[in-house]
Amino acid sequence: MTVTAPKAARARTLIVDCDIHESMSSIAELVPYLAPEWRLWFGQDSKPRVPPIHPYVLTQGGVRHDAQRSDGTTGGNHLDQVQWQHLDTYGITYGVLMGNWAFGAMPQARFAAGLASAYNDWLIEGWLEKDQRLLGSVSVAPQVPQLAAREIDRVGGHPQMVQVGLSIAPSGAPWGDERNDPIWEAAVRNHLRVGFHVQPPTGVQGAPTAWGWPGSYLELRSVFTTIFETQLISLVCNGVFEKFADLKVVLVEGGFAWVPGAMWRMDSSWKSVRSEVPWLRRRPSEYVREQVRFTTQPMEEPPEPRFLNQLIDMLGSDELLMFASDYPHWDFDDPRRALPPTLGDELRRKLFWSNAAAFYGLSEPDAET
Amino acid sequence: MTVTAPKAARARTLIVDCDIHESMSSIAELVPYLAPEWRLWFGQDSKPRVPPIHPYVLTQGGVRHDAQRSDGTTGGNHLDQVQWQHLDTYGITYGVLMGNWAFGAMPQARFAAGLASAYNDWLIEGWLEKDQRLLGSVSVAPQVPQLAAREIDRVGGHPQMVQVGLSIAPSGAPWGDERNDPIWEAAVRNHLRVGFHVQPPTGVQGAPTAWGWPGSYLELRSVFTTIFETQLISLVCNGVFEKFADLKVVLVEGGFAWVPGAMWRMDSSWKSVRSEVPWLRRRPSEYVREQVRFTTQPMEEPPEPRFLNQLIDMLGSDELLMFASDYPHWDFDDPRRALPPTLGDELRRKLFWSNAAAFYGLSEPDAET
Repeated sequence: MTVTAPKAARARTLIVDCDIHESMSSIAELVPYLAPEWRLWFGQDSKPRVPPIHPYVLTQGGVRHDAQRSDGTTGGNHLDQVQWQHLDTYGITYGVLMGNWAFGAMPQARFAAGLASAYNDWLIEGWLEKDQRLLGSVSVAPQVPQLAAREIDRVGGHPQMVQVGLSIAPSGAPWGDERNDPIWEAAVRNHLRVGFHVQPPTGVQGAPTAWGWPGSYLELRSVFTTIFETQLISLVCNGVFEKFADLKVVLVEGGFAWVPGAMWRMDSSWKSVRSEVPWLRRRPSEYVREQVRFTTQPMEEPPEPRFLNQLIDMLGSDELLMFASDYPHWDFDDPRRALPPTLGDELRRKLFWSNAAAFYGLSEPDAET
Repeated sequence: MTVTAPKAARARTLIVDCDIHESMSSIAELVPYLAPEWRLWFGQDSKPRVPPIHPYVLTQGGVRHDAQRSDGTTGGNHLDQVQWQHLDTYGITYGVLMGNWAFGAMPQARFAAGLASAYNDWLIEGWLEKDQRLLGSVSVAPQVPQLAAREIDRVGGHPQMVQVGLSIAPSGAPWGDERNDPIWEAAVRNHLRVGFHVQPPTGVQGAPTAWGWPGSYLELRSVFTTIFETQLISLVCNGVFEKFADLKVVLVEGGFAWVPGAMWRMDSSWKSVRSEVPWLRRRPSEYVREQVRFTTQPMEEPPEPRFLNQLIDMLGSDELLMFASDYPHWDFDDPRRALPPTLGDELRRKLFWSNAAAFYGLSEPDAET
């Protein structure tokens, strides 16, 4: 698909922000969009239960101070605040709405699928159709991949829907498991990317490490990247990228300093043990470089700016990273300061614009005049 | 402790090999060393059950072709072969025997502790006392930390015992859990280091990822480092290094390309959320740099030699890496070829000798003349 921003969005620097969190003030906002059979399920006790939230207490409740409102809502609940506080302030050309509602963590999978459908309609009506700069992620309940595929077919054709949004914590079977194939098939069939967002596993997703729940948010946050790493390895080693050559995925909020090592290890092991995995026809790192992208936020903040250039060198391509702000979360990255000047203008332009534009198929606004 | 090699060991290059696998031809070798009450447990069906082995089929059965013998044993089963094929051939000054018998994976914890005791006596009598170049790891069954501590006290005073040997896959509680404190106390009390070796989790250790068992050895091997990463983060974030300031640990066969990113992430999160973890008085990376070391094998084989220098630069210290060969396993690293000349002589000397000599308290053989 190709999306073109309105002229008003033409800022000095073209920017795709790959991670903005729109959100509901209350799950009850979905009731009007919900299939009639599910409306009965919204009693008094529903709100704190769906979708399940992870049990960790976060810094500042997880939201930027200046995005918290006196009525208890946050900037992400209001289209107008996302517009004035974020899109307009920073001249964001396109902003990808990640959603990140944990429908995939619900044990009641079919109800979760109903909520995801309602959410997509809520998103289209209240956000996408009101601002052409906004791009959407199709929410699904991946517990039943066939239902997820049906939902992708239902709304994936909307011109501003650019990807399927999933949690990097899988809902039972790891992402490389063949049982998830219907999701990748549907994404490819609808010309959509797949965006995996960080999410502290909860509900049916279980604990975030093989040995249980970290005892602090510091530890939880520190092990997040290992969830991305095991799941990327699962996708690669099980041949998902070989089977679905048109599948392109982005790992959002999972860092990237771990990626070179993961590619090297997979490659060197593959050289020795490739007879075990005949379904892989190429070097594992080739699948990563051609079909996987990573977002910048939270920047891994190496103590020396040169390390960032070295990491990009180690990735073996300067086309793998894409800028993200994570608005309105507390660890938001300001686009004016997130990428150090030592990167150089060309690389900054790639990270802010070209890499994401190529990945999502976006045109420069100028092309429309 | 201080160990000094005999004059015969003086080679041109001083080398500490931090990972050699001595092994039994059969678990039955432990019977003579076993406490009488456990001997009854060695019936016909015992051998394939203890210690439990992981269920993956490996390349070449896991052992170098030229270390496989026609009687079905391997080089690691025979002191004389370890001597001629490895120590003498490469002029190894000191070799650390890792053992790596998965006593910690056994559900019958007290029997496991009995086996570990027998193994330590077998090791001392058959290996350590026959070659002064060999340094030992105290085997324990960490399922009952108090029993493990008692065993460390029993044999940890042997002059060639340099560390407690553990699997990086914990036996139930993650390594940072306070229930494991008796092990660290005993290690420090006996002036021993702690060596964590890679091991595909099995038995009571469960699956190696939060979402189960990888479907190929390629995938299993690729996720190994994430076990090291989550467990190092567990040790750091739970304050083990703060509580035990004299505790020094080495992560063996877990790679190191992931370490800079892990340190940066912990540090940047700690800056924001340190009020949650008042037991950490220092920046997380400081604990890592001062109390943790990493071995080289399997080298992460970056496609460009300069990346190795850059990684060491990113580690923020050239004292964290120590050479290991993994003799006699199939992915053995030849000391003549493992470290690229681009590292430079000074760095090669640190990796081959000085870093490990400082870590284990080893003297240069010349100092004895």
